Amino acid sequence: MADAGSPELGTTEPPRGPIVLSIDAMGGDKGPESVVAGMAKSAAINPDLRFLLHGPEAVLAPLVRKRRIGDRCEIRDAAGTVSMNDKPSHVMRNGQDTSMWSCIDAVRDGEAEVAVSCGNTGALMLLSIVRLRKLPGVGRPAIACLWPSRGPTGFNVMLDVGADVRAEPADLLQYALMGTSYARNGQGIEVPRIGLLNNGVEEHKGRAELKEAHALIEAAAAENRFEFVGFVEGSDIPSDRVDVIVTDGFTGNIALKTGEGTALLIRELLGDAFRYSTLSRLAAMLALSSLKRLQKRIDPRRVNGGVFLGLNGTVVKSHGSADATGVSSAIKLAYELARADFTNRLAARVASGGGPVPSTAERTGS
Amino acid sequence: MADAGSPELGTTEPPRGPIVLSIDAMGGDKGPESVVAGMAKSAAINPDLRFLLHGPEAVLAPLVRKRRIGDRCEIRDAAGTVSMNDKPSHVMRNGQDTSMWSCIDAVRDGEAEVAVSCGNTGALMLLSIVRLRKLPGVGRPAIACLWPSRGPTGFNVMLDVGADVRAEPADLLQYALMGTSYARNGQGIEVPRIGLLNNGVEEHKGRAELKEAHALIEAAAAENRFEFVGFVEGSDIPSDRVDVIVTDGFTGNIALKTGEGTALLIRELLGDAFRYSTLSRLAAMLALSSLKRLQKRIDPRRVNGGVFLGLNGTVVKSHGSADATGVSSAIKLAYELARADFTNRLAARVASGGGPVPSTAERTGS
Repeated sequence: MADAGSPELGTTEPPRGPIVLSIDAMGGDKGPESVVAGMAKSAAINPDLRFLLHGPEAVLAPLVRKRRIGDRCEIRDAAGTVSMNDKPSHVMRNGQDTSMWSCIDAVRDGEAEVAVSCGNTGALMLLSIVRLRKLPGVGRPAIACLWPSRGPTGFNVMLDVGADVRAEPADLLQYALMGTSYARNGQGIEVPRIGLLNNGVEEHKGRAELKEAHALIEAAAAENRFEFVGFVEGSDIPSDRVDVIVTDGFTGNIALKTGEGTALLIRELLGDAFRYSTLSRLAAMLALSSLKRLQKRIDPRRVNGGVFLGLNGTVVKSHGSADATGVSSAIKLAYELARADFTNRLAARVASGGGPVPSTAERTGS
Repeated sequence: MADAGSPELGTTEPPRGPIVLSIDAMGGDKGPESVVAGMAKSAAINPDLRFLLHGPEAVLAPLVRKRRIGDRCEIRDAAGTVSMNDKPSHVMRNGQDTSMWSCIDAVRDGEAEVAVSCGNTGALMLLSIVRLRKLPGVGRPAIACLWPSRGPTGFNVMLDVGADVRAEPADLLQYALMGTSYARNGQGIEVPRIGLLNNGVEEHKGRAELKEAHALIEAAAAENRFEFVGFVEGSDIPSDRVDVIVTDGFTGNIALKTGEGTALLIRELLGDAFRYSTLSRLAAMLALSSLKRLQKRIDPRRVNGGVFLGLNGTVVKSHGSADATGVSSAIKLAYELARADFTNRLAARVASGGGPVPSTAERTGS
């Protein structure tokens, strides 16, 4: 895309100008060096990418200079940092000076399109809810992740993977709608296949609330142009039976971390296998490019980034332990969602489909 | 990974004469051929192994002859078969003539020490509860599985992985006691480390009932000689932070199938990687023995067998899709549990530790 003049950072341009992302430099395990290094990686690939970078200016300015992204990046000085151990409620009351707060407010104020942070998930979610507010009709926001799969795009969407440990049937229906919008706008799947995670595919299996959610989601499929494949099992998460897996945040979090833990164990065992003998070390050298391709495919850093859905603004949560590659993956995801004008499309989807069934949290006034 | 002592199952007990296992020949996806082939594999390895084989004699007799295990095996004629689609309650009312019923009754009547079946899990669990009865003090029986891990024995124990979709805090405490007994008697771990599965390790995380269970399990640790490591995450399931992972049957089932699905996906991608080019095919040939070792380590067939705990008798549930290798693994597990006199030791453990806290199901009379 041609560089249309030199648009000022932070102006609310129509979707086709530069994409401005709001980046929280602090709060990740590997510090701001990794964040700025990841920004530089992404900036080199996407010429129309601009950043608002939040954190202590004295720390960030040298890093930005070192990575030579000064012309793509504006630093917003913020002295405070949210740590992994801070209680979300404490951050909400006392965190006005933090980089995380400043990062989210840039999206709230329309200066940036999507926010990215490696920080404390609970605090980031609570601040996002408080500062961005929930979309009309949404009871519980959700975190969606991408999962390596045999599906058409190579990734399935799963939500919720940790925003809320509980979900009522009406929340699960909204997750189905939000997941539909994500798969359609973020992944280009016109009619996504939605599955509801259960401990078996038979209709009589599972907890009572899942049977209720099954009926709600099934009834909403035609109007909202998704295909409901019914219950799916843990083994279906990476399958091509389904594009979007809907579950509550407790179960989704367990599944996500179990998958990551399993992949990590196998990667380690594979490394052991190839270090076992001279012959196997030779084999590893011959197979290097094939193994690297596999490694890349199952590397959690490459699918880094949980997306907060259901808010007036999109927030991407990177792994706390993300290195430059991980941060760059999260930025890439944020960039693609911004380019697809995802926030506005999701709002339209939830408004059209979520109307008839208010979330339980709303019904009960909680 | 200290290998001192004998991490191998069952080697702690001196031989006590032949071990008789009760085998359900029917109900698996691959039919009785695979079951009898698996029995023959196990019989060849363990000379003191005997079988009671349940199913239609006209079908089974030729298979037993073909595999030459007639002198190790007595056929118990049973005309009926429980299919994967049969409702458990229907089997309970009408299944007296089935191989599954006959298989469990051989344990009930003291003719065999452990039962093995590839059939319908729900029916097998309900029949086991009805025919064997729960141990005194047990509210909800559980299914325990072994999970490839970095721990001292190479496997961690997880329970419940699907007996019951709900578990109250008192049930989770009993799972901790049953898991302790399994790790101690089945795996030779004197003081097992018990973890409670949650969506984060911080004490403020998770659902309210998990915080209650945390307190109950912590209080029971000293008296029952296990170490309570507190909350663990999905990524800890294969770790060496923990020997036994306690969770409800819904979450455990999702985690188990997610882990299996992830391992299967990676195995397929690994195969693709090695078929990619002439060079990578050559590499695969050179690395064959290393790859086979890895394959064996992560092959779900090798850790086949969920153990039903909390009953007057031990039942091993094999995967429905088990082939001869899978059936043989389930038989091996049953053999080792029988050798360790597991049923009686578990009963003693639950009786000593479960006394002060009756299960909620019992308290509420359900």
